[in-house]
Amino acid sequence: MTSRNTSATRRKWYIGVLGQHAPEEPVLALAYRIGKGIAERGGVLLCGGLGGVMEAACRGAKEAGGITIGILPGSSPDDANPFVDFAIATGLGEARNFIIVSASSALIACGGQAGTLSEIALALRLGKILAGVRTWKIEDHRGKKDFFPSFESAEEAVEYVFSRLQGAK
Amino acid sequence: MTSRNTSATRRKWYIGVLGQHAPEEPVLALAYRIGKGIAERGGVLLCGGLGGVMEAACRGAKEAGGITIGILPGSSPDDANPFVDFAIATGLGEARNFIIVSASSALIACGGQAGTLSEIALALRLGKILAGVRTWKIEDHRGKKDFFPSFESAEEAVEYVFSRLQGAK
Amino acid sequence: MTSRNTSATRRKWYIGVLGQHAPEEPVLALAYRIGKGIAERGGVLLCGGLGGVMEAACRGAKEAGGITIGILPGSSPDDANPFVDFAIATGLGEARNFIIVSASSALIACGGQAGTLSEIALALRLGKILAGVRTWKIEDHRGKKDFFPSFESAEEAVEYVFSRLQGAK
Amino acid sequence: MTSRNTSATRRKWYIGVLGQHAPEEPVLALAYRIGKGIAERGGVLLCGGLGGVMEAACRGAKEAGGITIGILPGSSPDDANPFVDFAIATGLGEARNFIIVSASSALIACGGQAGTLSEIALALRLGKILAGVRTWKIEDHRGKKDFFPSFESAEEAVEYVFSRLQGAK
Repeated sequence: MTSRNTSATRRKWYIGVLGQHAPEEPVLALAYRIGKGIAERGGVLLCGGLGGVMEAACRGAKEAGGITIGILPGSSPDDANPFVDFAIATGLGEARNFIIVSASSALIACGGQAGTLSEIALALRLGKILAGVRTWKIEDHRGKKDFFPSFESAEEAVEYVFSRLQGAK
Repeated sequence: MTSRNTSATRRKWYIGVLGQHAPEEPVLALAYRIGKGIAERGGVLLCGGLGGVMEAACRGAKEAGGITIGILPGSSPDDANPFVDFAIATGLGEARNFIIVSASSALIACGGQAGTLSEIALALRLGKILAGVRTWKIEDHRGKKDFFPSFESAEEAVEYVFSRLQGAK
Repeated sequence: MTSRNTSATRRKWYIGVLGQHAPEEPVLALAYRIGKGIAERGGVLLCGGLGGVMEAACRGAKEAGGITIGILPGSSPDDANPFVDFAIATGLGEARNFIIVSASSALIACGGQAGTLSEIALALRLGKILAGVRTWKIEDHRGKKDFFPSFESAEEAVEYVFSRLQGAK
Repeated sequence: MTSRNTSATRRKWYIGVLGQHAPEEPVLALAYRIGKGIAERGGVLLCGGLGGVMEAACRGAKEAGGITIGILPGSSPDDANPFVDFAIATGLGEARNFIIVSASSALIACGGQAGTLSEIALALRLGKILAGVRTWKIEDHRGKKDFFPSFESAEEAVEYVFSRLQGAK
């Protein structure tokens, strides 16, 4: 009797990358390095599958030999950016954000507009591991602010989420 | 020939009230007055249909003779608080937050935890009229903070959203 | 101390009416009488909120003094037919069919195209009380056919679902 | 300048396999061969990610060197059967059926209970290429029956959907 030796049987971490369609250049550079870092550590990159932060992160992951999955709002896989390996065309519009968060083991938010903030909040709501890099700051009505750690570099954010996933922290 | 004279033919505003299940007392008092204010102006109150802010707001609306609709996460209408007129048991879990925001003409956030923040962010994402009362403060990565007005009193928040809906502002 | 006497505290049955946008005239006449029957027995009519069977059923319900709720695919309550009292603009596209079925205590299917068949199947999947009038016939791969009763008249179908809801059958 | 040479840039067909959790043995054997056939033709297999038909199809695909994606109802990727390469834990419950259909270029239904019928109907509603093998028979209220072709063998069904996708038919 032999062990199964398929890619399906290895433990996988799904790391969601959150960010907007059309950010400024420094945010894109961060996203690229986040994607690269995720792939280098063997994580599967999940994202919204479109342009901007999503595309930069996917490009980084592919250049490091990783796997990328795009959870699209529309109904055609052709909407995905060219660095998406597998496109899930949900047909759910903006409600697809919920799936990205639900399906991720941990998430990294980078820059972002309101859509990204909604994903950050859903990640907190669902108790996911979450790191931010140059993203939203939030404060609740009692003045509490420390909902998730914020980092200056992509590498620190990637290091943080994998440490947490591996129980090292 | 006569005009139709059914409740279905009057112009309706759907006002979403966002807030958490188990807040402190002052937030509940605010929620009650928000619900009351919405009903006094003829708005239909939409909310998550459960307890806390949701129940206090529905109670306020019912005491002012209004109509309340609860968009529930579970699959039984019996989960609704007793001040919900119509319970929509979506069976979608937390993803039902998306529907509350989508279905509202305008929204008022009051106190709240991460679920409320996700609804605030979705409201901004969908371009909805939004007011806050003692709720989350948010700041994007460029330091922008003025995403929605925050008020001290329930009455000001209600006044604000109806003024905006009626194009008075 | 008095009992609460709001419309919110009465036991409500939510009856979903399933059917297509543009059916032939006899199906519309059936839908009208289904809506009327639901309202006469005090049920709240749930449907997709658009035209055809949905509009005919809502018209029947309103003429009998009932309440109608439309669960819309789009993001504007103005998409609802004029006989919808409360429009829930879900923004979920066709996925909103799931909510109609989930939120209904019992359902009546009338005529219909593929969208209606998907709702019939979801109703069976979720174990809902279901009746058909001039609608789809289905047979599984083992030859089983009796998944839900089919009636010739609107009145029989309405009678059936209310009997089942009240435990009389 | 070189062309991009990543797995992300090849044209992919996503083939959904629909079927129940606990079918009889002959249906499982069919599902296995459907999965194998999809992988042999280079298709990416999409399914609900759980047991029964879903697991048998994934096993067939993996043994032929293919790729499998499971769109799960729950919130943990660990719910997936061991032959799922990538698990998308949607957290949407039964509403995840909608995503399987939306994300597939073509679908093959095999055996099945009510959940499978709802997916068949959604596939018709969304205009997807669809083939059946020993699955539901449907007839609309006007007596129309030929909504999708039904085959005796897994191989014929696979051949049919790929022919349609490649415009050969």
